[in-house]
Amino acid sequence: MTLTGWTLPQSPTGKSSMLPAPPWHYSGEVIAVDFLADVDKVAGYVPDGFTPAGDGSCSFVFCDWASAADHDPRIKGDPSKGQYKEAYLVIHGAWGDRRAGRVPFIYVDSELSIVRGLIQGFPKKLGSIHMTRPVELGKGGSRKAPGEMFRAHVSAHGRRAVDLTVTIDEQRDKTYPKGVAAPLIHTRLWPSIDGDEPAVYEISRGTIEGFEVGTVWHGSAELEIGSPEHEEIADLAPISVGDGWVLSLAFSVTGGTSEPIAAKGAAS
Amino acid sequence: MTLTGWTLPQSPTGKSSMLPAPPWHYSGEVIAVDFLADVDKVAGYVPDGFTPAGDGSCSFVFCDWASAADHDPRIKGDPSKGQYKEAYLVIHGAWGDRRAGRVPFIYVDSELSIVRGLIQGFPKKLGSIHMTRPVELGKGGSRKAPGEMFRAHVSAHGRRAVDLTVTIDEQRDKTYPKGVAAPLIHTRLWPSIDGDEPAVYEISRGTIEGFEVGTVWHGSAELEIGSPEHEEIADLAPISVGDGWVLSLAFSVTGGTSEPIAAKGAAS
Amino acid sequence: MTLTGWTLPQSPTGKSSMLPAPPWHYSGEVIAVDFLADVDKVAGYVPDGFTPAGDGSCSFVFCDWASAADHDPRIKGDPSKGQYKEAYLVIHGAWGDRRAGRVPFIYVDSELSIVRGLIQGFPKKLGSIHMTRPVELGKGGSRKAPGEMFRAHVSAHGRRAVDLTVTIDEQRDKTYPKGVAAPLIHTRLWPSIDGDEPAVYEISRGTIEGFEVGTVWHGSAELEIGSPEHEEIADLAPISVGDGWVLSLAFSVTGGTSEPIAAKGAAS
Amino acid sequence: MTLTGWTLPQSPTGKSSMLPAPPWHYSGEVIAVDFLADVDKVAGYVPDGFTPAGDGSCSFVFCDWASAADHDPRIKGDPSKGQYKEAYLVIHGAWGDRRAGRVPFIYVDSELSIVRGLIQGFPKKLGSIHMTRPVELGKGGSRKAPGEMFRAHVSAHGRRAVDLTVTIDEQRDKTYPKGVAAPLIHTRLWPSIDGDEPAVYEISRGTIEGFEVGTVWHGSAELEIGSPEHEEIADLAPISVGDGWVLSLAFSVTGGTSEPIAAKGAAS
Repeated sequence: MTLTGWTLPQSPTGKSSMLPAPPWHYSGEVIAVDFLADVDKVAGYVPDGFTPAGDGSCSFVFCDWASAADHDPRIKGDPSKGQYKEAYLVIHGAWGDRRAGRVPFIYVDSELSIVRGLIQGFPKKLGSIHMTRPVELGKGGSRKAPGEMFRAHVSAHGRRAVDLTVTIDEQRDKTYPKGVAAPLIHTRLWPSIDGDEPAVYEISRGTIEGFEVGTVWHGSAELEIGSPEHEEIADLAPISVGDGWVLSLAFSVTGGTSEPIAAKGAAS
Repeated sequence: MTLTGWTLPQSPTGKSSMLPAPPWHYSGEVIAVDFLADVDKVAGYVPDGFTPAGDGSCSFVFCDWASAADHDPRIKGDPSKGQYKEAYLVIHGAWGDRRAGRVPFIYVDSELSIVRGLIQGFPKKLGSIHMTRPVELGKGGSRKAPGEMFRAHVSAHGRRAVDLTVTIDEQRDKTYPKGVAAPLIHTRLWPSIDGDEPAVYEISRGTIEGFEVGTVWHGSAELEIGSPEHEEIADLAPISVGDGWVLSLAFSVTGGTSEPIAAKGAAS
Repeated sequence: MTLTGWTLPQSPTGKSSMLPAPPWHYSGEVIAVDFLADVDKVAGYVPDGFTPAGDGSCSFVFCDWASAADHDPRIKGDPSKGQYKEAYLVIHGAWGDRRAGRVPFIYVDSELSIVRGLIQGFPKKLGSIHMTRPVELGKGGSRKAPGEMFRAHVSAHGRRAVDLTVTIDEQRDKTYPKGVAAPLIHTRLWPSIDGDEPAVYEISRGTIEGFEVGTVWHGSAELEIGSPEHEEIADLAPISVGDGWVLSLAFSVTGGTSEPIAAKGAAS
Repeated sequence: MTLTGWTLPQSPTGKSSMLPAPPWHYSGEVIAVDFLADVDKVAGYVPDGFTPAGDGSCSFVFCDWASAADHDPRIKGDPSKGQYKEAYLVIHGAWGDRRAGRVPFIYVDSELSIVRGLIQGFPKKLGSIHMTRPVELGKGGSRKAPGEMFRAHVSAHGRRAVDLTVTIDEQRDKTYPKGVAAPLIHTRLWPSIDGDEPAVYEISRGTIEGFEVGTVWHGSAELEIGSPEHEEIADLAPISVGDGWVLSLAFSVTGGTSEPIAAKGAAS
């Protein structure tokens, strides 16, 4: 009998696999902020070939995701499988002559997402993530409306990594906040078990289709980046904080492209 | 100096208290199902003075809550404090000559909610709760629209207590599903530490204001009730399953009323 | 039919109750440190009638507990029910003319423990707690032996409340570290739902039997107390840090005693 | 500047990496049971070249681990980083002419362990794991002694996967229970992002040094294997249950060996 499955665990049916191959679909609620970090520090967190924006331009993005996969309906069907929260820092810049983003730190709160992310080159770790969820009526929560506050925070190993608050001032249609709009340049890295060189070491990009932004709300923002014990995210702490955003977002990942990296940089 | 605070921990300022006195405000997203349980079993789970509906009529309700408190803005302000998920069974019937509900089992996923609930007489335990969160756009999740599926489940100590699915068929305005609409008759019970009789043993009712139901969607439903090791909820397993509901809900609790119970039933 | 159970939820059998009445039994592994806090701050956290030691003497104690209850074998029988971790600060002093301790802040990681604690007057909240677990062999962890390090930390809502490290220097038999040895003076507080005065407001003490200390290891210690958003524990931050301890501990709680408090201090 | 780190996330220092390259050290407390599963089912879960024992011989092993890494002292130093619980099924058989084991299902409760495991070819998912922790004194828990019960269970996505109980009858020195003693034959599988063939698809074995078994206790056992929604572990449910074991264990992983697999079996 043959063991099958796109990821481990493999089984005779493939149904135990953590996840199937793309296409994967994402629908989410975003709370984000744009900010400037130290230019020299930013330069240390991008791969060869990526040119940072020059002013230390970054965004921090939280997203409450629902996700689905064409080849496994259980992912959309079980909220404990396909839904999760994500928090990531993105450095703005260019890859060759095209606008691009780079994610040096990202946290999620599900096993599926951590593995699906690592496969794409997102450097995911687990975090404890909380985000203000917009409400439709009543006085228990915040609505998407001027004057309302949306807060999001992520902690790693019991220490706060990032805490941000957006106070909405106005709706801005036809706006694509840069924190969510740039094509991302990832490093796919998977160690070998029997040698010094990685088994996989590639620059990769996701193939994105159906990118949609729903209603976009703009606001003022506050951002705090802490110093969790096992993270270096404080290197990219804000020097100044810019626009805040609250929006709905959706897209699909249908695959990706990759090119090898010379492995010398991977030695630990 | 004087220690103060509505609940423990008390401190000089009262700011360490788990929560302040009411008013408390709630805004939530509900997934619910009506069902019939065994009439004799239902009769065993209501207090003296409560008359069950006669046909074993019950509902199971999941709610994703945002909550706030007039006397502590940190509860609305911090999503890790005021937001939580809840799952409860309600038995339908009457208290005296008025329609009423009784909640024999309820699970939440936050410390604030477990303590705030016990104070009111909700018999809360911790559970791991997941609910389909409606999405606004894209293919990653379910929208509130005909044909879409909403699933919710709760587990206690790693065993599934309840798993339900609602498949929406139509919108139903001006409808108050009975699972969320009945005044609840609670038992407030707090043991003494130095005697056989409880220190508090009362029938209590919350004082509700500003009850609002948003858009209401109706659908067909499936419901599974399991047998977690430390629960007896399987006593109230469905004999037949009725209407399913997906809706938004809001109300405020401004206080409550209570009357003593003769304590003989409380001996363990 | 009569609803029964020492706590909520009550049921026809009483088997759904979160826990039964005492006796309760505890066996644990402790990592603790003695320290001095600000004398004036300490004075603000004790009830009338409790005299703090005068030098701001406190201990912070972590314990990895296994617990059992005579009237419910499921608590010892299911590790997800009876086992949990606890972290608490104790202020040293006297109650009348007898040595006593007062616990202003305490965190646990289980529902059973939070409710069992509140019933006794421990001001429990949920925390995320990690402690170095001693190992018997190999190089993966720390042994109870000179030169070995034991670390423990607790976080509340994603912020570190307390982080301590003990580096063992020697075994000390027949020693009862004061952090675990003092009788504790608690405030039992349970709000009413329909009035300004608490329903229960008492000074209480547990009745302890079978107190045993196993092998006791002494060491040097480091202690950091942080500022979680919903806590005031930073009021009691260390001015100087003293002895560290690693030990095994066991006792039983067979009940308690209580006396009413005039309620004026309880207003929130 | 060069990005470095054995795994993602890479950074200028390498200190953000989830983990460093081996050597890794492990010290743990094991609760395990030997059992027979369906011979045909077992045959479906082993890779080409692995010969199952013929009688469906398997073990299920829980372990409470403390782990360390030579190249990152923070892993031993922080109990939230290096300590975790693990639960796995092992199929007994041979690889070529040597005794060997194969792990088709394994659950852990830490991010470090899930990634470190996938790198080695362990098919790890996250689970909620509880194990009876042995106590030294008192009546709160179980000691390693005849008549005492040790229970362990793991749940995935809120459904119980495995629940086992060992009741100790006697000490057995110089015994290596087969659940922990066999060299394991893994499949290292890492998908590509831009093609049908995996980027990594290898048979791998860990290089183990310093294997030590502490005091070994034997007992009778009960074993229940459930049907979590996203797992097929019920395929390997027990037909008969054999010996139970409670023991301490330690070893080091200093690296591994690997050989490519023809990729045709990996299609999802």
